[in-house]
Amino acid sequence: MRAGPSQDEIRRQNLGALLRHVHLHGATSRAELTTALGLNRSTIGALTADLAAAGLVSEGGGRETGRAGRPSLVVRPESQRVYAYALSIEVDQLRAARVGLGGRILDQRTADRPRGTLAAESVGPLAGFVKELHQAVPAGSVLVGSAVAVCGMVRRDDGMVRLGPTMGWVDEPLGPALAEALGPTLTEAFGNDRGVLVGNVSDLCALAEHARGAAVACDNVVYLYGDVGVGAGIIAGGRRVTGHGGYGGEVGHMVVHPGGRPCLCGSRGCWETEIGEHALVRAAGRTGAVGREAVLAVVDAADRGDSSAQLAIRQVGDWLGFGVANLVNIFNPETVIFGGTLRDVYLAAAAHVRSRLNSNALPACREHVRLRTPKLGDDAALIGAAELAFERLLADPLDATTG
Amino acid sequence: MRAGPSQDEIRRQNLGALLRHVHLHGATSRAELTTALGLNRSTIGALTADLAAAGLVSEGGGRETGRAGRPSLVVRPESQRVYAYALSIEVDQLRAARVGLGGRILDQRTADRPRGTLAAESVGPLAGFVKELHQAVPAGSVLVGSAVAVCGMVRRDDGMVRLGPTMGWVDEPLGPALAEALGPTLTEAFGNDRGVLVGNVSDLCALAEHARGAAVACDNVVYLYGDVGVGAGIIAGGRRVTGHGGYGGEVGHMVVHPGGRPCLCGSRGCWETEIGEHALVRAAGRTGAVGREAVLAVVDAADRGDSSAQLAIRQVGDWLGFGVANLVNIFNPETVIFGGTLRDVYLAAAAHVRSRLNSNALPACREHVRLRTPKLGDDAALIGAAELAFERLLADPLDATTG
Repeated sequence: MRAGPSQDEIRRQNLGALLRHVHLHGATSRAELTTALGLNRSTIGALTADLAAAGLVSEGGGRETGRAGRPSLVVRPESQRVYAYALSIEVDQLRAARVGLGGRILDQRTADRPRGTLAAESVGPLAGFVKELHQAVPAGSVLVGSAVAVCGMVRRDDGMVRLGPTMGWVDEPLGPALAEALGPTLTEAFGNDRGVLVGNVSDLCALAEHARGAAVACDNVVYLYGDVGVGAGIIAGGRRVTGHGGYGGEVGHMVVHPGGRPCLCGSRGCWETEIGEHALVRAAGRTGAVGREAVLAVVDAADRGDSSAQLAIRQVGDWLGFGVANLVNIFNPETVIFGGTLRDVYLAAAAHVRSRLNSNALPACREHVRLRTPKLGDDAALIGAAELAFERLLADPLDATTG
Repeated sequence: MRAGPSQDEIRRQNLGALLRHVHLHGATSRAELTTALGLNRSTIGALTADLAAAGLVSEGGGRETGRAGRPSLVVRPESQRVYAYALSIEVDQLRAARVGLGGRILDQRTADRPRGTLAAESVGPLAGFVKELHQAVPAGSVLVGSAVAVCGMVRRDDGMVRLGPTMGWVDEPLGPALAEALGPTLTEAFGNDRGVLVGNVSDLCALAEHARGAAVACDNVVYLYGDVGVGAGIIAGGRRVTGHGGYGGEVGHMVVHPGGRPCLCGSRGCWETEIGEHALVRAAGRTGAVGREAVLAVVDAADRGDSSAQLAIRQVGDWLGFGVANLVNIFNPETVIFGGTLRDVYLAAAAHVRSRLNSNALPACREHVRLRTPKLGDDAALIGAAELAFERLLADPLDATTG
């Protein structure tokens, strides 16, 4: 029931739209911006001047158009100067990156994360990485935000990690803990009072693939992220589906096998008990092995003709298609993306996944669906965390940089 | 990547916001509109004058405020004058209504629909109802649109009913067929070239309960509609989730029981095979009985102590909770509404539904969820169809009435 915006709101909206365009599409000529944003040349000129004065974009070096006359000026995001810190806590890894406006990873650090370690044992190393990265930042650069992706259920209001079943975390105030570990210099530099934003890894991977990966221009997307557990980042009608508290997308706990194996969540027969890392490794008769290496070992063995590995791939692929069919009936997506270890399972079992999808999903719901692997690969979580960190800047570019 | 709106777009947006407010909330004082829309008094005055001149609202008869001074003028939707035709094709019923702006049913007709009849056999009687209703319309009234709710999968682009499994329909061009049966006088009067809009019954019930029923002010809603089959109307982040082609929400074909009973869709173990009308009647040992009467007979028998009816209610209630738990994990809704025959099943089996929800859904996903019956009862489909028919008017009030 929102009424129309004021003149000032329109200007902010236009500044955001222009900055978002070059953030997502890179160098763009003024002529292209005029078309893309539906604004006249003088408005584009004025908006560009404002953004350039704030140090968010630069103009110049027009690309050759191949036609006579002056080449059109090109507007570029200041990717080297304007940046966010993006962090990721995965089951087996900790990652931190400095990501420039435009989604470019400028610098990064990675470390193994021993399973079973507490939240505090992730916070320390990540804060250390950010401090390292920060020492190498050129003078005059501007930090506009910071966010972390985590394999857990994140309360939207304050970033509390309510439950990370695969990591054994309960009610971890991850955002504040990271902000405290980073110290005032780094958090004040964020230019906002929210410290470090926190997002679910599947949600942020979906955001990244939607912004600049395998689901660009798709309005209805299901991104499946698998490791020990399975979650989904869902985009419907171009917008993220996160639910009332922010906990939506827990598709790994959709029960597909009543009376099936016990799940870490306390229920039985959840989808992740049939398609998670443990299910594949167990089905291949390889108890004891863990992690992505173990998943890849099963895939390799199946490739080489190992019959129990092949059976495991078929079985897990069938269950994968089973749950995908349910989600296709529910969401009627254009694109389903298989991320994390599900990428490897999908590539090995694509025919089984498709076959089960065809037998279980309604023809109208599945007729245009494309099954895809992530275009951004393992960087999706970091790129997605950076997208989250950039959101405030893109919503109101001048306020975010001068506040 | 939309840039900010023009002055004219803002005026249309404001006109739409004001009209939508009185459409949803009824008579509203200028003072309340000023607050609700965040616009100043003179803008509200000008917008009201424009809408009144177009015959969409009237002003006057200020309510007593209990304070000294002039009572504030009250703006009312012209519910008697501005109306839409709303139709509904349910498994066992055909319904048609004339619905005034503000969501008021002014007049209606109902007929039984024999099961197994073709689309054409619904179109004729419905068109007849509309013609009857139209003869009683007072002079000077304005028809602004028309829409039909149907138990089937509706292609968003053109309203084609791709599949109505419970009705045996395949690829029925319902919108054009209704427009043709209504004839040029009625369809030209709609003031638009889209003829009769078509929506899925669950989607439209969700829209209605969200607009003026059990889910007002809830941004995340799952509305379950059951008869022979089961569908959901889903609202996430305040917006309908309909998927790429418009077919989303087919939760009745979420497989919950692998290898279970064959479903009308060709798959096995779909949720609707465990919670649809046939499942309940069969579980109670009453094969042969059909329709809502049959469902109510089982509920009554259970109430009176019939042990096989009680067993059926427990069993179907458990499966109902089972699927609801899956949807709660996926959508983290504030409100789940049980409509159609699922209303009766839910009321009889609420404890079993809740118990299964508690054991299968993640605590964070279910902690704030409310399980509800429809506030609009059996009128939800008609009210929802009317909401669909009013959408164009509310998006651009003056264009829709003068076009």
